[in-house]
Amino acid sequence: MPVRNDDLNGSAPDKSKFALLLIDVINDFDFPEADQLLRFARPMARKLLRLKRRAKRAGVPVLYVNDNFGRWQSDFRRQVQHCLRADGRGHEIVRLLQPEEDDYFVLKPKHSGFFSTTLETLLRYLGSETLIITGLAGNFCVLFTANDAYMRDYDLIVPADCTASNSAAENREALTLMQKFLKADTRSSPRVRFPAARKKRR
Amino acid sequence: MPVRNDDLNGSAPDKSKFALLLIDVINDFDFPEADQLLRFARPMARKLLRLKRRAKRAGVPVLYVNDNFGRWQSDFRRQVQHCLRADGRGHEIVRLLQPEEDDYFVLKPKHSGFFSTTLETLLRYLGSETLIITGLAGNFCVLFTANDAYMRDYDLIVPADCTASNSAAENREALTLMQKFLKADTRSSPRVRFPAARKKRR
Amino acid sequence: MPVRNDDLNGSAPDKSKFALLLIDVINDFDFPEADQLLRFARPMARKLLRLKRRAKRAGVPVLYVNDNFGRWQSDFRRQVQHCLRADGRGHEIVRLLQPEEDDYFVLKPKHSGFFSTTLETLLRYLGSETLIITGLAGNFCVLFTANDAYMRDYDLIVPADCTASNSAAENREALTLMQKFLKADTRSSPRVRFPAARKKRR
Amino acid sequence: MPVRNDDLNGSAPDKSKFALLLIDVINDFDFPEADQLLRFARPMARKLLRLKRRAKRAGVPVLYVNDNFGRWQSDFRRQVQHCLRADGRGHEIVRLLQPEEDDYFVLKPKHSGFFSTTLETLLRYLGSETLIITGLAGNFCVLFTANDAYMRDYDLIVPADCTASNSAAENREALTLMQKFLKADTRSSPRVRFPAARKKRR
Repeated sequence: MPVRNDDLNGSAPDKSKFALLLIDVINDFDFPEADQLLRFARPMARKLLRLKRRAKRAGVPVLYVNDNFGRWQSDFRRQVQHCLRADGRGHEIVRLLQPEEDDYFVLKPKHSGFFSTTLETLLRYLGSETLIITGLAGNFCVLFTANDAYMRDYDLIVPADCTASNSAAENREALTLMQKFLKADTRSSPRVRFPAARKKRR
Repeated sequence: MPVRNDDLNGSAPDKSKFALLLIDVINDFDFPEADQLLRFARPMARKLLRLKRRAKRAGVPVLYVNDNFGRWQSDFRRQVQHCLRADGRGHEIVRLLQPEEDDYFVLKPKHSGFFSTTLETLLRYLGSETLIITGLAGNFCVLFTANDAYMRDYDLIVPADCTASNSAAENREALTLMQKFLKADTRSSPRVRFPAARKKRR
Repeated sequence: MPVRNDDLNGSAPDKSKFALLLIDVINDFDFPEADQLLRFARPMARKLLRLKRRAKRAGVPVLYVNDNFGRWQSDFRRQVQHCLRADGRGHEIVRLLQPEEDDYFVLKPKHSGFFSTTLETLLRYLGSETLIITGLAGNFCVLFTANDAYMRDYDLIVPADCTASNSAAENREALTLMQKFLKADTRSSPRVRFPAARKKRR
Repeated sequence: MPVRNDDLNGSAPDKSKFALLLIDVINDFDFPEADQLLRFARPMARKLLRLKRRAKRAGVPVLYVNDNFGRWQSDFRRQVQHCLRADGRGHEIVRLLQPEEDDYFVLKPKHSGFFSTTLETLLRYLGSETLIITGLAGNFCVLFTANDAYMRDYDLIVPADCTASNSAAENREALTLMQKFLKADTRSSPRVRFPAARKKRR
């Protein structure tokens, strides 16, 4: 077991100063107030898809950091299938933002993507210093994750149009908090500039 | 996102004082010295299968705590498929110890099952206080995981016949260390007694 | 080294379902905007002192969870001395809230009391399940600590009159957030009821 | 609270690729088998003192990573005083290895210096990549700390003459383990070379 793990050869992660995090977008929206959130989540998903595409062209790794919704025995790809079902309320969003083969994912048991997950270790291997945090809900799991990222000294970009909450006011409040206390850059997604793509290490 | 996560309703984990951990048994044995380890791992796998069956009958949750082998974009079920391929050196063992639908799994990026994983949170939800630690290699990932479990005040059972290392001497040394310093009970697996099965919480 | 540590005999901590946390009250208020904060921190300190006294009478352990202010080579008692100096702006508050011999303390390097500290382990030994979080600033280190406590499934009481921020509005906002998202009970301190005192374990 | 903490100005730690860790040397040796350990700990302390002096001349930060011995309400300087008492069995060793004003310290509640402490954050601020791990006991807290350091990708030097265990055989075994599995360099302390001293950041 040790050998391959030590230097992670075989499938070493990319190296990138930036990393794009998508929080809880793989979602069946099967909870109270889901309709309120969906009103804002649908237009957000389209913006986020464009941002994701630009990130990948620039060689920026894409990390799905997603609730396991208490399904400790499930895995991420199954959860995607579950959410893609046509009768699920999230299927449009999940179809748009479906993870690709080379995307990373981290299943989180609680609100922050850093709590009791492998996220910090993965980011260390990626060498990322700036996190672009997006997804749902802006004033909850996105905010919790941003708090934890700030404590770990990451620079934060939280594009105002790539996060959604149950109401526009709550989303705005969360963005203001992150701007003020976490020094987050909240410029809208089309204005986010990625560093020039670097060659993969291998 | 919050709602279902808070109380983990929908798919709350079982409650059990005991938990059975299988370390790195889903393995393609594609590393130097794999043949040495396999010599001991094959007979171990059969003992472990019997222990696993007894555990499940007793309502003790089974947790696969497995290296991600640097495949950060993969998931556990894919890894199982990869290791099951007939030409892989691990396929016999993986076939025996194939995870079932109701088994839990935790992907670990490094040696200890507790480092940068969700294991501690999962065990807290399960309410487990005694960990039965088994698998590969006895003097490495099993030992690292046992060290971390001990620091977190778990009681440890490491059945001598359900762990394997590259040599019998190294395995014995590791067991002696765990017995002496971690107060691990190293009785052989047929002598491990589970508490009477409890009803699942829901 | 192992022997006394294993069971923490010698000076085992008390056992208590409740724990009272004082965040960053040992403070020299030597930063911009300190005057704004002091306006609210002074009356808060008097309320908090009464709450602390009631807590101690009820056998509830008192934990000073305090910034190390980048003084990695200092320790808590020195920091108290530093802040007590008559010409320091915090000396009144620190005099009121001076830690006593049997109070616990945890030095934190960052905003949350749980990040990179011994707090979680200490609370586990205390057996605490409900945290009363107080101190400075309500919308920053108190909020960060409350977030992390919530993720770890503690029940929260954040008495509205025992936390202060740079403005009344910001403090109110933080309290609303904690009430809404962290299910914090924000009743004022005189209305906080402690469970009947239990005998110390030893 | 935020302001000074954010950039740690005021008393930013030094920057150094190397860091020297002294594990549990501030010790009252008030436990069974202490006499066995002392037989080896006394000569070790003299070697370690020389190594410490050389480290400091080279600008390498010295970190005391020390058990709190269950004294959650005490602090490090008090513990030093307690151990210095003439009738204590550890007083010779503690006198030799007494921490100086500019030494760092980290109180650990359990065996590994990384568990539930601020060590990892401090090392990140120091920018250290190579840890020289020394102290007591070689096959216990030193080994646990080395395991955790290795998982976090630090390079390890564990000078064979600057660690002691209850017996020479146990110490040798621990060194062999660290050499083999943690890739630790176990050269004796006079042969440890520090990088040329760098100016302090400020």
